[in-house]
Amino acid sequence: MQSALINGKKLCCSMLLKNCFRPLSAASGKLTNVEINDKTGVAVLTMNRLPVNGLNLDLLRDLLQSIQEIEKNKCRGLILTSASNTIFSAGLDITEMYKPDQERLKQFWNALQDVWLALYGSAVPTAAAINGHSPAGGCLLASSCEYRVMLPKYTIGLNETQLGIVAPKWFMSTFRNVLPRRIAEQALVQGKMFTSDEALKVGLVDELVASKEEALIKCEKFFASFSKTDPIARYLTKKQLRYNDMKELQDEKVQDVENFVSFVNQPTVQKSLGFYLESLKKKAK
Amino acid sequence: MQSALINGKKLCCSMLLKNCFRPLSAASGKLTNVEINDKTGVAVLTMNRLPVNGLNLDLLRDLLQSIQEIEKNKCRGLILTSASNTIFSAGLDITEMYKPDQERLKQFWNALQDVWLALYGSAVPTAAAINGHSPAGGCLLASSCEYRVMLPKYTIGLNETQLGIVAPKWFMSTFRNVLPRRIAEQALVQGKMFTSDEALKVGLVDELVASKEEALIKCEKFFASFSKTDPIARYLTKKQLRYNDMKELQDEKVQDVENFVSFVNQPTVQKSLGFYLESLKKKAK
Amino acid sequence: MQSALINGKKLCCSMLLKNCFRPLSAASGKLTNVEINDKTGVAVLTMNRLPVNGLNLDLLRDLLQSIQEIEKNKCRGLILTSASNTIFSAGLDITEMYKPDQERLKQFWNALQDVWLALYGSAVPTAAAINGHSPAGGCLLASSCEYRVMLPKYTIGLNETQLGIVAPKWFMSTFRNVLPRRIAEQALVQGKMFTSDEALKVGLVDELVASKEEALIKCEKFFASFSKTDPIARYLTKKQLRYNDMKELQDEKVQDVENFVSFVNQPTVQKSLGFYLESLKKKAK
Repeated sequence: MQSALINGKKLCCSMLLKNCFRPLSAASGKLTNVEINDKTGVAVLTMNRLPVNGLNLDLLRDLLQSIQEIEKNKCRGLILTSASNTIFSAGLDITEMYKPDQERLKQFWNALQDVWLALYGSAVPTAAAINGHSPAGGCLLASSCEYRVMLPKYTIGLNETQLGIVAPKWFMSTFRNVLPRRIAEQALVQGKMFTSDEALKVGLVDELVASKEEALIKCEKFFASFSKTDPIARYLTKKQLRYNDMKELQDEKVQDVENFVSFVNQPTVQKSLGFYLESLKKKAK
Repeated sequence: MQSALINGKKLCCSMLLKNCFRPLSAASGKLTNVEINDKTGVAVLTMNRLPVNGLNLDLLRDLLQSIQEIEKNKCRGLILTSASNTIFSAGLDITEMYKPDQERLKQFWNALQDVWLALYGSAVPTAAAINGHSPAGGCLLASSCEYRVMLPKYTIGLNETQLGIVAPKWFMSTFRNVLPRRIAEQALVQGKMFTSDEALKVGLVDELVASKEEALIKCEKFFASFSKTDPIARYLTKKQLRYNDMKELQDEKVQDVENFVSFVNQPTVQKSLGFYLESLKKKAK
Repeated sequence: MQSALINGKKLCCSMLLKNCFRPLSAASGKLTNVEINDKTGVAVLTMNRLPVNGLNLDLLRDLLQSIQEIEKNKCRGLILTSASNTIFSAGLDITEMYKPDQERLKQFWNALQDVWLALYGSAVPTAAAINGHSPAGGCLLASSCEYRVMLPKYTIGLNETQLGIVAPKWFMSTFRNVLPRRIAEQALVQGKMFTSDEALKVGLVDELVASKEEALIKCEKFFASFSKTDPIARYLTKKQLRYNDMKELQDEKVQDVENFVSFVNQPTVQKSLGFYLESLKKKAK
C-alpha cells in the first residue's frame, strides 16, 4: 500500500486500537498486518505469510484477531489483500492436514470456521483486493467480502473437486451468494479456476484493475458508496441477508469439524496428501 | 388513463363489482380509484393521495380493499399506478410513526403486511406502471407485482439503510424474487436508488416507456401473454413459487409488528423522525 | 449416433454391464437403448418410444433402469437424447391419465418421481442433446441434466399452466436450478415455450448446434471438462448442491402421488383430457 496514494499510516495495532484485545502471543501478530488510512478510516488487512499465504492455524488466528480488531475500532471498511505479488492466498496449508496432531487439526478447522463467520458477517464493510492467484480457501476469503477487485492474469475459484475434496456447505453458500446458481453449480462441480476476465464476466469479481494501488482505490470508492448509509442499519441488513448461510454453519459447527477430521484421517487421503507434498518439494527444487 | 387509448370506463366500484365488499366508510374510498377496461377486463388501480402517495393507514386500507375487489371481480389483470405525474409512491408516511398512537401504529404496520400479502400473492396477474419516483415502500409495492414498466428519469429502490432503517425480511424477499442475489444484496446494503436506466439494466423493471399511456399498454400486453393460460393453474403456480416468502411473514406476523413498534418507539428514532419532518416542512416552504 | 463420429459401439446392455440388473421383462427394454462409446466411456441413452416419446409407465421404467445401469457401470457421462428427429419428448403420456386404472396411475407418478431422483441426483455427469421439441415432462428431463445442447428451430419449456396443470414443486425447483428466479417465475406462470434462440439467451440451454452429431460431440466435451476432477468429490459436490431440492420430494413422495392422483381424478380434468385426446386423434387423421 502506497501511503502517498491513500494517505495510509502504519501503526502497531495495540497503539492504534483503543479497544484492542490481543490474547495471543506477540509472535502471532506477524502473519497479518493492519494499516489504517487516517483520512478515510479504512483498514487494509494484509496476509503476510510468504510465499503463498497458506492458511495454517497461525495465519487463521491472526486473521481472526485482525478482523475483530478492525471491527472493534469501527473502521469504515476492511480491505483484504496479500503481501505477495503473485498469490492472494493458496488456500489451506496442507501441512496442517498431513500426519496431523489431532487436537491441532480440530483447532485448525475451527479457526477457519471462525474466520469465515467473522468475515462473512462483518459489521464493517468488506472488500478484497485480489492481487494474485486465489484458489480454494483463498477464493473463500475473497468471496466472503462484499466487493472484489482483481488484477489481470491471475486465477480464482473453488477448485476443491480437482483436489479430491468436497467443499463444505458454507463454501458453497458463499459462492452462491455471489454467482447465479447455474454458474455456481457448474463451477463447483468442475472445480473451475476462473481467469480474471472470466471472473469479471460471471460476476465473481466486480472490477479488474492494473495494479494493487488501483485496487485499493476502487475498494475505498466502494466504501464511499456507504457515505449516506446508517452504519447500524447497513450492518443489520447485511446480517439479515446472510443470516441463513451463517446459521447453517453455527448450528453444525461441531459436526462440520468432525466431518473434516474424519475425512482428513482417511488412509487414502493421507496417502494423497503425502504424494502431493512430495511433488511440491520436488517442484520447489 | 386515456379512455380513448384503452377504452377504459370509469365506474364506481360498488356499481361495478357484484361481489363488492366495502366494510369501510365511503370516505375511505377516496385515496385509491379503480378503473376497469371493459374490453380487456384489466383493472387500473390508481393511488391518489397527493402530493406523494405517502402510505398512511388510510391509503393502505384503501389499497387492500381495491386489491380484494379486483380479485373478487376476477379481473384479467391489475395495473398499479399513481395519480401523480412525478411520484409513484414516496413510501411509508412518516407522520404515522412520529409521536404515534400505539394502537394505530400497530394497525398501520398490519395494514402494510396485508397489502403486501394481497398484492404479492394476488390471484389476478399484477403489473406496475411506475410513473414517478418509487423509493422504499413505493418500491416494495412495485416489486410485489409480476411485471414493471417505468418512465425515464425517475428513481426506484429500497433505500431504507439511507434512512437508518432495516427493511423487514419480506421487503428483502420481494427484492430477491426480482433481482439476482448479488445485486439485491449490494443494493439493499447501500440503500441504492436506481435510475430508470439502471433499473432496466439489472432487471428491477422490465421495460422503459416514454409515457403513462404507453406504460398501461405494455401492462395490457403483459396480461395478454396469459391468454392461453388456465387462470387457476396460473395462480396456483405463482402461489407455489412465492409460498416460502409469504409463509415467512404469515408465521411471524405478530412478531413483525412488535419489531416495528419497538423500533419506532426508540427515543433516537423518534428524534430522527422529528428532525426529518422538520426538514420536510422547511423544504415545503 | 454415428459410430464413425464418436467411435460408439452398440452393445446389448446385459452383455456390457457386469453389474447389470434387469428385473423387468425383456420387452420393457425396448423403449430406451444405451450405447457406450468405448473410447470415452460416455453412454448415450436414447428414448425410443416413437413418434413422440410420450412418457408412459413403460418408458419411465426403462429410463430408470437405463440410468441405474449407466451409473452401476461407472460411465464417464450420460447423454440423454431422442430417437425422433423432431421431438425430444412430448412429456407425460396423457393416456396414462385418462380413465386410469388407479393402481397403475400411482405407479406411473411414482416412476416419474424415481426417474427424476435418479437423473437429477445422478453420480454420473449428465447432459441432454435436445434434438427436438421438449415441452413439459420433456423439459423436466432435459433440465435435470447438468448441461444442455439444443438444435435450432425447436421449442422447450414447462408449459403446464397452458394445459391447465400446476407443475409439482420439484419441476419448479429443477427450473430454478437452471434459470434466474425472475425468469423462472415468469416462464412457469406463463407456461412459456422458449424457442431454441430464446432458451440459449436466458440460459435454459448452454449451446445451440446444427445437428445431433454436433450435440453429442459438445456433450462429450462437457464431460471432458471433468478430466482432472475426482469423480467422488464431483458427485458429492453435486449432491450437496441439489440436496434440498431432492430432499423436498423424498420427504413428500407419498403426498405428491396423492396430490397427482386426486388432481387427475377430478371430473373436470377427466373431461379436459378426453377432449384433448379426441382433438389429437382428429389431428392425426
